[in-house]
Amino acid sequence: MAEKQQSSSDQLEWRINVGDGSSRTLVPKAGLVRRAWQGLKGVIEAFFVKKVWRFLKKAWDLGVDDPRKFIHCLKVGIALTVVSLFYYMRPLYDGFGGNAMWAVMTVVVVFENNVGASVCKCLNRICGTSLAGFLGFGVHCLASKSGPKLEPFIVGSSVFLLASAATFSRFIPSVKARFDYGAMIFILTFSLVSVSGYRVDELLGMARERISTIIVGTSLCILVSMLICPIWAGGELHVLIHRNMEKLAISLEGCTSEFFQSNGGVDDKNKESNEKLLGFKCVLGSKANEEAMAKFALWEPAHGQFNYKHPWKQYLKIGSSIRSCAYCLEALNACINSEHKVPESIMEHVSDSCLTVSSNASRVIRELAETMKTMKRSSTIDVLLGEMNSSVQELQGNLKSLLPENGTPIMDMIPVLTCVSLLIEIANRVEAIVDAVKELSNLAAFGFKDQDKSKQDQPKSSENLVQEKEREEQTIMTLQRVSVL
Amino acid sequence: MAEKQQSSSDQLEWRINVGDGSSRTLVPKAGLVRRAWQGLKGVIEAFFVKKVWRFLKKAWDLGVDDPRKFIHCLKVGIALTVVSLFYYMRPLYDGFGGNAMWAVMTVVVVFENNVGASVCKCLNRICGTSLAGFLGFGVHCLASKSGPKLEPFIVGSSVFLLASAATFSRFIPSVKARFDYGAMIFILTFSLVSVSGYRVDELLGMARERISTIIVGTSLCILVSMLICPIWAGGELHVLIHRNMEKLAISLEGCTSEFFQSNGGVDDKNKESNEKLLGFKCVLGSKANEEAMAKFALWEPAHGQFNYKHPWKQYLKIGSSIRSCAYCLEALNACINSEHKVPESIMEHVSDSCLTVSSNASRVIRELAETMKTMKRSSTIDVLLGEMNSSVQELQGNLKSLLPENGTPIMDMIPVLTCVSLLIEIANRVEAIVDAVKELSNLAAFGFKDQDKSKQDQPKSSENLVQEKEREEQTIMTLQRVSVL
Repeated sequence: MAEKQQSSSDQLEWRINVGDGSSRTLVPKAGLVRRAWQGLKGVIEAFFVKKVWRFLKKAWDLGVDDPRKFIHCLKVGIALTVVSLFYYMRPLYDGFGGNAMWAVMTVVVVFENNVGASVCKCLNRICGTSLAGFLGFGVHCLASKSGPKLEPFIVGSSVFLLASAATFSRFIPSVKARFDYGAMIFILTFSLVSVSGYRVDELLGMARERISTIIVGTSLCILVSMLICPIWAGGELHVLIHRNMEKLAISLEGCTSEFFQSNGGVDDKNKESNEKLLGFKCVLGSKANEEAMAKFALWEPAHGQFNYKHPWKQYLKIGSSIRSCAYCLEALNACINSEHKVPESIMEHVSDSCLTVSSNASRVIRELAETMKTMKRSSTIDVLLGEMNSSVQELQGNLKSLLPENGTPIMDMIPVLTCVSLLIEIANRVEAIVDAVKELSNLAAFGFKDQDKSKQDQPKSSENLVQEKEREEQTIMTLQRVSVL
Repeated sequence: MAEKQQSSSDQLEWRINVGDGSSRTLVPKAGLVRRAWQGLKGVIEAFFVKKVWRFLKKAWDLGVDDPRKFIHCLKVGIALTVVSLFYYMRPLYDGFGGNAMWAVMTVVVVFENNVGASVCKCLNRICGTSLAGFLGFGVHCLASKSGPKLEPFIVGSSVFLLASAATFSRFIPSVKARFDYGAMIFILTFSLVSVSGYRVDELLGMARERISTIIVGTSLCILVSMLICPIWAGGELHVLIHRNMEKLAISLEGCTSEFFQSNGGVDDKNKESNEKLLGFKCVLGSKANEEAMAKFALWEPAHGQFNYKHPWKQYLKIGSSIRSCAYCLEALNACINSEHKVPESIMEHVSDSCLTVSSNASRVIRELAETMKTMKRSSTIDVLLGEMNSSVQELQGNLKSLLPENGTPIMDMIPVLTCVSLLIEIANRVEAIVDAVKELSNLAAFGFKDQDKSKQDQPKSSENLVQEKEREEQTIMTLQRVSVL
């Protein structure tokens, strides 16, 4: 604004007084261009600068929230600069020829956010290129020997057939999960090689060079992604699963206490804390992410606590059992948001036992999260599970002995009884999580919590395991008998 | 086995009788190679052929289930053959130079299963290449003028900075949703251009050629994917949503009748039909698919019933409201699988009204599916909604007047009351689907069912809409008052 005034002050001005006491400048028609410019400047200032600024601010916050994003960008920058300069240096450039651009291309296309995805793409690229190179070379030889008339037909039909077949293979789930990128590279290389106008001896040299540049590119990618602050898909999946467990535990405990505390309607004060309780919504939406991470984790070498053949697929089972808990919690959360008043007669009977069930179930889930986090078998999980199951039985016992008071219509009992039955179903499903985690700890041979004693414990624990197993089966049978949902 | 005996019959054999009465051939040591070969052949026969056969069979079934997969493969084959032969013909090949391979590469990389994804990638590729080409050309000029010592530093640092920045932009959700591929192509082209060893005048010609080949490739892709049996992402999303609605309606009706029919335990006979009732599980898992389709649909031109700016985002809202219904249905399904016996006193009061609520809710959902499918506003949806709400009120009224009989412990009432409360919550959530579909029909200006009358109806219907709106608000208020969940 200061600029505007300054620029117009060195000129004669006509002003007119407007009804509200202010004055307006009468701009002559010759000032149209200037006005248009001023307007444009205003628009640019208001719209563009602000919008760009807000966009940049948001992007920056994104990086501050998860600094590994910044680190990934720097890693891509480093890998690409190294390979570019490698290509830029003339002696090497002459050595690799024009094919050196394949090294740059490989780095750009193959470098992914986590090690597993990068390794997957690298191996796919190398295998796809080699296989297609051989096949394409064969077709090229055949075509060039069969005379100029047949040549385009052989090339055309082989491209058509192999491209269609390879494209179809990308629809097959088992191929899609592992070799999707490889199939694409196969089509690409095969077409390029078989239709290339080169003579056969030229082609062989070119193939050698191209594969060597691709190997240079992929090796650089794998080195950079593994050595500089590596992000492992397996690690991400591991963290995702135990964080989801923690969120579920917090939500479960929070929702139940919210239900019984806010008896008679939801307070506005509580609504704020409600947002904390919605952690289970993250669990509901994390399926796609889990599947992608498990897919990439299979390609990763041993790292940190994880062996090469770590049972990543079991993580998906655990994830889906957590989600099945979260579905019930979603319905429970709907109970909270409805207006309800628990009848006093029932309230005093169930309130405490419900809160106990939910806090016991939360403790089980937290202990499982701890087991997952530390990758050590929990020594207390069976005790906690037993406590949860006995609190469920206590709740059910309370309800069995509880006869409805005359005068309390069934309608009023519905919300609290729904809450009770969902809690019991949640306890049931928590048991499924326990089983899934136990299966994982067997598959991945988790250690025991007290490492010092672990050697003495091992023979004992196999006995313990049998006892545990029996105890477990008993509890499961009890629970099945008394389960109401 | 027959072969083995035949091959050994023309040879002297030593046999030894084994304890169980059979005899074994004593093979001399010289037969080791033959035995190894036989063994290998056995392994190949048993393992390889069977496995490959089973794999091919499965792949074929995949295509037979959805023949559009075959068509897509043929389309890729056609596009690639056309572009390859175009490249193979020498006159054209000489015209485009070695850069013609970019046309082949473009087709392979850009051709996707649906039109939206192909268009998205094509436009991203053209824009990314052009923008990066200009910038890279500038950096290349600057570097080549600044002397041989500074040159690698300028090139290296510009590659580092722009590659890092462009990689970071791929993390920003709004960029990721639309320009993810463009950002990758930007990095690729920028690196290739700025580090290329060419002289400036060579570079200009090369850039012109490369962009023209890319345009040839992308145009071919867009033409083939749009003209030969096109698969539209928008159409896929449209079908996905109304099929999910139909599945939800079937599951809802099925689960409720299953609950009241199987009073006293689940029959084994019914378990088979149970599988039909699990349609809601598809709904639970279709979020990622819906989001991907909605993202691509934004890139599609007007086609069939859909305009260019069809409100695809509203489909995601409808999808998530369908899913929120499916969560409750998941909990309801757990009720069925539990052993329960509804007390007779409650049974006779609620059974009919529950079945009415669920069949009314199903009818509403089916009508919504029909609305979505035909893209015509339903004339009966408000009537159906009213019926559903009044059946909910009737159910609630029944329960209000119903005082529990002495002698029926609360425990026994839990499953049926949970079922009731979940049904009422489902009815609530069905109303949210109705709202979302109504919003869509306003946004997309859906027509009316009787097309002949549509012109006379239009002025009336705006009055109707006000009345409807009022009626709707009343029902919502009533339902909020009486909602128990």
